[in-house]
Amino acid sequence: MIKKPELSIIPLGGRGEIGNNMMLIEYNNEILILDCGIMFPTEDMLGIDLVMPDISYLIKNKDRIKAMLISHGHEDHIGAIPYFLREISNIPIYGTKLTIGMIKKKLEENRLLKEAKLREISAGEEISLNPFQIKFVKVNHSIPDAVAMGIKTPSGTIVYTGDFKFDQTPINEEPTDFNGLTKLGEEGVLALLSDSTNAEHKGYSISERVVEENINGIFEKAKGRIIVATFSSHLDRLQQIINAAYKTGRKIAISGRSMIANTKIAKELGYLNFPDDMLVEIRKANNLSDHKIVYMMTGSQGETMASLTRIARGDHRQINLHKGDTVLLSATPIPGNERSVGETINKLFEKGAKVIYGRELDVHVSGHAYQEELKMMINMIKPKYFVPVHGEYRHLYHHSILAQEVGIPEENIFIAKNGSRLNVSEDKAYFASSISTGKVLIDGTGIGDVGNIVLRDRRILSEHGIIIVVVTIESKTGRVLAGPDIISRGFVYMKESQELIEEAKSRLTKALDECQEKNITDWSTLKTKIKDPLRDFIYNETRRNPMIMPIIMEVPNK
Amino acid sequence: MIKKPELSIIPLGGRGEIGNNMMLIEYNNEILILDCGIMFPTEDMLGIDLVMPDISYLIKNKDRIKAMLISHGHEDHIGAIPYFLREISNIPIYGTKLTIGMIKKKLEENRLLKEAKLREISAGEEISLNPFQIKFVKVNHSIPDAVAMGIKTPSGTIVYTGDFKFDQTPINEEPTDFNGLTKLGEEGVLALLSDSTNAEHKGYSISERVVEENINGIFEKAKGRIIVATFSSHLDRLQQIINAAYKTGRKIAISGRSMIANTKIAKELGYLNFPDDMLVEIRKANNLSDHKIVYMMTGSQGETMASLTRIARGDHRQINLHKGDTVLLSATPIPGNERSVGETINKLFEKGAKVIYGRELDVHVSGHAYQEELKMMINMIKPKYFVPVHGEYRHLYHHSILAQEVGIPEENIFIAKNGSRLNVSEDKAYFASSISTGKVLIDGTGIGDVGNIVLRDRRILSEHGIIIVVVTIESKTGRVLAGPDIISRGFVYMKESQELIEEAKSRLTKALDECQEKNITDWSTLKTKIKDPLRDFIYNETRRNPMIMPIIMEVPNK
Repeated sequence: MIKKPELSIIPLGGRGEIGNNMMLIEYNNEILILDCGIMFPTEDMLGIDLVMPDISYLIKNKDRIKAMLISHGHEDHIGAIPYFLREISNIPIYGTKLTIGMIKKKLEENRLLKEAKLREISAGEEISLNPFQIKFVKVNHSIPDAVAMGIKTPSGTIVYTGDFKFDQTPINEEPTDFNGLTKLGEEGVLALLSDSTNAEHKGYSISERVVEENINGIFEKAKGRIIVATFSSHLDRLQQIINAAYKTGRKIAISGRSMIANTKIAKELGYLNFPDDMLVEIRKANNLSDHKIVYMMTGSQGETMASLTRIARGDHRQINLHKGDTVLLSATPIPGNERSVGETINKLFEKGAKVIYGRELDVHVSGHAYQEELKMMINMIKPKYFVPVHGEYRHLYHHSILAQEVGIPEENIFIAKNGSRLNVSEDKAYFASSISTGKVLIDGTGIGDVGNIVLRDRRILSEHGIIIVVVTIESKTGRVLAGPDIISRGFVYMKESQELIEEAKSRLTKALDECQEKNITDWSTLKTKIKDPLRDFIYNETRRNPMIMPIIMEVPNK
Repeated sequence: MIKKPELSIIPLGGRGEIGNNMMLIEYNNEILILDCGIMFPTEDMLGIDLVMPDISYLIKNKDRIKAMLISHGHEDHIGAIPYFLREISNIPIYGTKLTIGMIKKKLEENRLLKEAKLREISAGEEISLNPFQIKFVKVNHSIPDAVAMGIKTPSGTIVYTGDFKFDQTPINEEPTDFNGLTKLGEEGVLALLSDSTNAEHKGYSISERVVEENINGIFEKAKGRIIVATFSSHLDRLQQIINAAYKTGRKIAISGRSMIANTKIAKELGYLNFPDDMLVEIRKANNLSDHKIVYMMTGSQGETMASLTRIARGDHRQINLHKGDTVLLSATPIPGNERSVGETINKLFEKGAKVIYGRELDVHVSGHAYQEELKMMINMIKPKYFVPVHGEYRHLYHHSILAQEVGIPEENIFIAKNGSRLNVSEDKAYFASSISTGKVLIDGTGIGDVGNIVLRDRRILSEHGIIIVVVTIESKTGRVLAGPDIISRGFVYMKESQELIEEAKSRLTKALDECQEKNITDWSTLKTKIKDPLRDFIYNETRRNPMIMPIIMEVPNK
């Protein structure tokens, strides 16, 4: 009996974290890449701009890559494409119309559009990329044109949900293609890879239609200006705002780079509908009567440079808040952002605005399925194996419990770590040897493997500051010509700090004199003789551990 | 007509922030201090241990201070007492039995107990501190022995609620003394200062009794070890855990400094009840059968050094998690801590524990009143003026809306900033001239006015790192004897970094040569000539702005 080739599922990111989504499907030495996203840095990644999965494995095996398939246009699914293409060019990228539109803009900004091979597909379509057949099935999410994928191989079918929810009354698009999903289930599915983001939440997610009603109510009541902050990719929400503005005779002014960009792409591709004369420049908007304008902008997460945050701080160049303004935060804080969002809200209140942010009524609903929808997905797909994806460990865990509740045996459920290789077949599924993977931290203009040392240093610097000791010595004799001088940055100044510094200097001078007597001239020993006593002294006096950096300048003897 | 002395309300902290509570009541040149708390540092206060209000005004006017009254034993109400007493000694401090017990412990640790004047009062008691009469009224909170205060003066009465909720079925203590509150209302109240923490939340807070039922259910179901993390000051919750342990035949082992300390004080003063032989040392506990032990510990906020966090990381010296353990997080994340709590939960799941943290059932309820209770307080006290306290601006704002809903006219509601002086009398209330105030950031062993410069430096260091340029020059001639050497810490190393450093060095050498030709020897100019070109160069190459520190060592001519 000919042994069938192994069908492998390998997550490179998105497991044990929210973001960084990248999944590999390997069959018979051919690789399909599902999604290519970034992750935003966490608090401890000081000074890092963004994070992406480590693609060394793909670089090594680039001749085996068949294609990249993208489920939808969010940053945590397309954000790493430019960095990917800089390392591995010539890979065809498949996505729906809006998704390709957003990828195009990103590649344009990075001057990579010319060489890119972008292929537009439609939900409902099936394509052939031997040995893979891929069926795209429409799902709802917080951005239009999202698809799930059924990836068929001779060894079996894998279904990847992408990000999804079930909305029975969506805005501006069709509900999920349930028929497409059940048909895949009927044909037999080996493994289901499903979105775990909201696996902790009971019941069903709420429809966008509810938000629409509430937004309309707010627009009808507001007598003055309205300012709305939301996710610039949430086109359904933007459409609701535009509709409410239209109904109440208001023009729209947009602020914020990504809001302006996304609105433009979406309108060009037909995903946003509004008469052209509804859109006005901010300068013009500022001259209209208060009840005739709504501003749409970024800043729903309290991001430092985003429009709403700048308005709250009072340093937005064009928009100043005044009493009578209504501010609508049509988003909830992403975990980790609660404090910055709270501060923005406080400042907006202090400026006299009426701020609506989800306490009194739903002005935002999630784009990810809740527990009952997740169970429904499993019941429609009826997989043999279940692999929860897109979540931190606790989300994956809760999702695995749901799968058991609907009858998937515990031994058929796999919580995979990034880099693990899960081989699946009719008879069995098991973890084979992992591939090496990790995160790449991107800082500044290019990919810097910023690495742990730099981060660790920044951490020490941020908490305790730095003390620099500089001394100039004569080359052969080790005689001290200048210094030791002590300079600090970020190190606490207490009332007695001048005395502290003087005391430290005199101890160092003594230590250096001893070194000269013993004829110690090698830098390594000298630095230790400076560092150790100084560190103990500082700690005893202040209970702090600043970074201590001894610098020795050597002047050659005349 | 003799003009009555002004009655002033002056918040020093706790307004526009959660924490740092300190309120002054001034009448006829005498000052009463209500509460003396700290605040925990926010993310941007790098390396700071804790924050307290600026008490310069009190230091200047210390002879006018009559007494300090403490509402309850939480850190944000007693945490600054040691620092206060170091500056202003000899002030009598009044509190209930448990509150005084916790203050005693704090002063003991700081070697200030001997000189302190601690005065124990009981709820229901009225004391005379001419010209003030103070009535203490019992309220419920998330720590026992909390009181509200009615402060009576010839000019009128001010009621300060402290932190409160209404719990009709509290654990181990009486419900709020509603009669005491309505009596104050009957006698006539000029101004009410009320707890705004949960002013955004509709309805009523939930009773501790609900949590008790859920905890009992969890203890009955768990077959293995149970680990509970909660606030060490939440004595009611500790009692519920102890009761549940007793019912299910489990011994208790405690881990975490504050948990051990508070349990000891509480038992000594009679606020926790359990047979002495229920408590065992962790070492002994580890030898008992799994179903016979519960560990009670700190770490419910994911604090780095707390017990549960260390267990999750795997570096707790005495306790290792294994499959079959149940971990109960009987607390919700304080705003700002969501991420660290989430990470702890993830790690606990990964270690195989079953983690219960409030998703499926209520295992924590708030200690602060919700909207209906806040309205009820106003209806019982019936004040003329209303001053929302204990909250960020948005909480104070929402609380002021509630006050209007129950009939307080908008012009009688005052949202005071820290340092403002609100004068109240029968005829009028108005803001008089403020006093200067602020926050003091405490870092290390003593009060350091850490100040903005140090924090700003730490911020730059944390995001971009530091580049140090050292050069040794000859005193009079300015001739370069050694260097320029470039050393960096926390600065990104990209593939081309070595070339970058070399290029920077050569540019600096050129700049320094020019300085020597032009006979520039003053340090200030030299440093600028080093800093500016280097900063531009680094930014152009990397888009980063590290701190640049030029250090010039001068060697005298021979």
